[in-house]
Amino acid sequence: VRQVTAELYARVQHFYARQTHALDSGNFKEYVDTFTEDAIFQHSPDAPPARTRAGILAAAEAHREAHKGDRVTRRHYFNQIVLTPLPDNSVRATLYALVVRTRSGETVPEIWPSCLLEDILTVDDDILLRSRHISYD
Amino acid sequence: VRQVTAELYARVQHFYARQTHALDSGNFKEYVDTFTEDAIFQHSPDAPPARTRAGILAAAEAHREAHKGDRVTRRHYFNQIVLTPLPDNSVRATLYALVVRTRSGETVPEIWPSCLLEDILTVDDDILLRSRHISYD
Amino acid sequence: VRQVTAELYARVQHFYARQTHALDSGNFKEYVDTFTEDAIFQHSPDAPPARTRAGILAAAEAHREAHKGDRVTRRHYFNQIVLTPLPDNSVRATLYALVVRTRSGETVPEIWPSCLLEDILTVDDDILLRSRHISYD
Repeated sequence: VRQVTAELYARVQHFYARQTHALDSGNFKEYVDTFTEDAIFQHSPDAPPARTRAGILAAAEAHREAHKGDRVTRRHYFNQIVLTPLPDNSVRATLYALVVRTRSGETVPEIWPSCLLEDILTVDDDILLRSRHISYD
Repeated sequence: VRQVTAELYARVQHFYARQTHALDSGNFKEYVDTFTEDAIFQHSPDAPPARTRAGILAAAEAHREAHKGDRVTRRHYFNQIVLTPLPDNSVRATLYALVVRTRSGETVPEIWPSCLLEDILTVDDDILLRSRHISYD
Repeated sequence: VRQVTAELYARVQHFYARQTHALDSGNFKEYVDTFTEDAIFQHSPDAPPARTRAGILAAAEAHREAHKGDRVTRRHYFNQIVLTPLPDNSVRATLYALVVRTRSGETVPEIWPSCLLEDILTVDDDILLRSRHISYD
């Protein structure tokens, strides 16, 4: 990637919108397809990263199983996306994330955590997520 | 609409920014002009939808009248916009919405509700909202 | 600026993303470089505006000094950006801002204040902020 064009910026925003909708609606097949086959996802400071689409899918399913009684709707808000071109067909994306959680039967959501995401995206006909590192505030 | 170009994505973002500013500032004339003349707005699960610009204006004015003593500033945040082209001159937009409410004399806002919006937008020289369906979390 | 193109809209979004990251990470040199040399920043209704990059830097450093024991991570979320072209090489940007504050050792952030920003941006090879007026809800 040579420079951050308007086309790239809009494509990245749309990519994140589709990724968060897939995750929040529980469409994990579509969600893991937003990662590269060999992706690395460092989602927690206390655990090793998830690796490969199969590993990221397993982590998502384990999270759902652990929270299956919660009856909480989660919505990921990604914002303030800074892009830095890298020498190959990729780009670094640094962005903010908030999760909005609404418990069934309540109207006022809980909003946490607040995070910094550091992603590497590959940019070809499709955009895919090659690595993600989450820092919790 | 054939494909989601950067131009379309930016136009849709700008459309929503102008629509929310018009609504939140109480400029209802400008707000209803963001809808098509024959728009349908399903704003509540418990009531029939508002129909046509005149009907949507009446609903907005009724809401203001019902809350006129509240002294609350509302700000609508729309985010995570996913666009899907439709066969005619329209596009489906699926997006998240949060309302930030600050009571006069207080600094900490209440943030609710969290919603999913499902919109149909017509895309010509201007973008207009033809239908909206709100799902509350 | 003659019209709001997709290129301009994406450039402005990226500009605000970089500005907020610089501010929130304490990189004040990069932060003040997002202002014009002669910028005016009306950040409080009760104080005179900060003027020039040197004055804005001094205000940022004074704010950090006053809050140095707080151990709070702040993240500025800017959204709902409305652009209005102006007759010269500038554009008016009207947008919403929220600050998300997470105290060290806690996970649930405080979200305040909610603001309206009225900015004038100069648009050349770079985008720079010439003036900012903040209205707190």
